[in-house]
Amino acid sequence: MSNLSRLRDFIQAFTALVNESGDDEARMLDAGEKLLADLIRHDDWLPEAYSRPDSGGYRQYLLHCDPMERFSVVSFVWGPGQQTPVHDHTVWGMVGVLRGVERCEEFAPDPQSGKLLALGSHDLHPGSIDLVSPRIGDVHRVSNALTDEPTVSIHVYGANIGAVSRHSYDPRSGEQKRFISGYSNDELPNLWDRSDEMAP
Amino acid sequence: MSNLSRLRDFIQAFTALVNESGDDEARMLDAGEKLLADLIRHDDWLPEAYSRPDSGGYRQYLLHCDPMERFSVVSFVWGPGQQTPVHDHTVWGMVGVLRGVERCEEFAPDPQSGKLLALGSHDLHPGSIDLVSPRIGDVHRVSNALTDEPTVSIHVYGANIGAVSRHSYDPRSGEQKRFISGYSNDELPNLWDRSDEMAP
Ligand SMILES: [Fe+3]
Ligand SMILES: [Fe+3]
Ligand SMILES: [Mg+2]
Repeated sequence: MSNLSRLRDFIQAFTALVNESGDDEARMLDAGEKLLADLIRHDDWLPEAYSRPDSGGYRQYLLHCDPMERFSVVSFVWGPGQQTPVHDHTVWGMVGVLRGVERCEEFAPDPQSGKLLALGSHDLHPGSIDLVSPRIGDVHRVSNALTDEPTVSIHVYGANIGAVSRHSYDPRSGEQKRFISGYSNDELPNLWDRSDEMAP
Repeated sequence: MSNLSRLRDFIQAFTALVNESGDDEARMLDAGEKLLADLIRHDDWLPEAYSRPDSGGYRQYLLHCDPMERFSVVSFVWGPGQQTPVHDHTVWGMVGVLRGVERCEEFAPDPQSGKLLALGSHDLHPGSIDLVSPRIGDVHRVSNALTDEPTVSIHVYGANIGAVSRHSYDPRSGEQKRFISGYSNDELPNLWDRSDEMAP
């Protein structure tokens, strides 16, 4: 059985944080990272349907969207050999690894040429968190560093990320394309049935 | 295709209303009823999975729960011959019929004997709304008035109704039993993928 109350508790704490500090990116990233670290400390809560890789490419399963679209929580799943395009977010984001090993390659547009500069690459293990935003660095490519297992990470963004108009990049030319990612799933986990835990 | 944006718009408007007036039951019922009337004016948005009757009894499908559990939106589905027990809510609620005909029998505890007084019965047709709360009358039994078709209604409550400890009643003796309804569904509709409507 998946311990969904961990995700429900996280969403309630994150909602309280956004109510209080939603306009303060530095505070959201600082306090939000602590909440996300608590969530990904355990790997016993994500329902199987939201951690399933797909041979057609990486999956982005929405787990929760704030009703006013101030933040969203997404489970990303990469099968072996899968990667995102080089892309930006245009809003703050947090990437917390739950399972496997995630490779993050960072880029920055060269203000002179408009091309992309490769800033380097690092691997994230379960429990580790990366931060992105236009202020602190917003362009990356993420892939599965494992060749034999899926990698699963939990992302939080300062918007309904699947509905944000943002950009993918050709890593050589730096050429931008507009994209809207959507989500891979038509149904979300129901976190709100407390009847089992409350039963007399 | 189901026009899910109607439900998303309703939830955003209702969230704004709760943010503003969540502590004022009379205002919630008054302004909330107008929002619900707009939602149930059209029957083109409820996904089939949340309008499916079950031979085992009426279904209560959670469509949305406010993350702070200040309100919830539930689709109730009665097959022919199905009814709820006599029950209370302990919080405000609105019952808006989407499809079919819903029979509402109202009761009140007799303060002298503790037994239940039957106050009467009325039928609600699509577009009609009933209100309940401990202040205005909270005990009823709801059934499908049709013998050959399901009845579907959209309910909004001032709490996460599936997790509220409340009561069912023996209609003869008035005897109360505590119950927590839970929900019939493990997955909610994903209302937040706007990529189709936003596509260039
Ligand atoms: Fe990213
Ligand atoms: Fe009821
Ligand atoms: Mg899709």
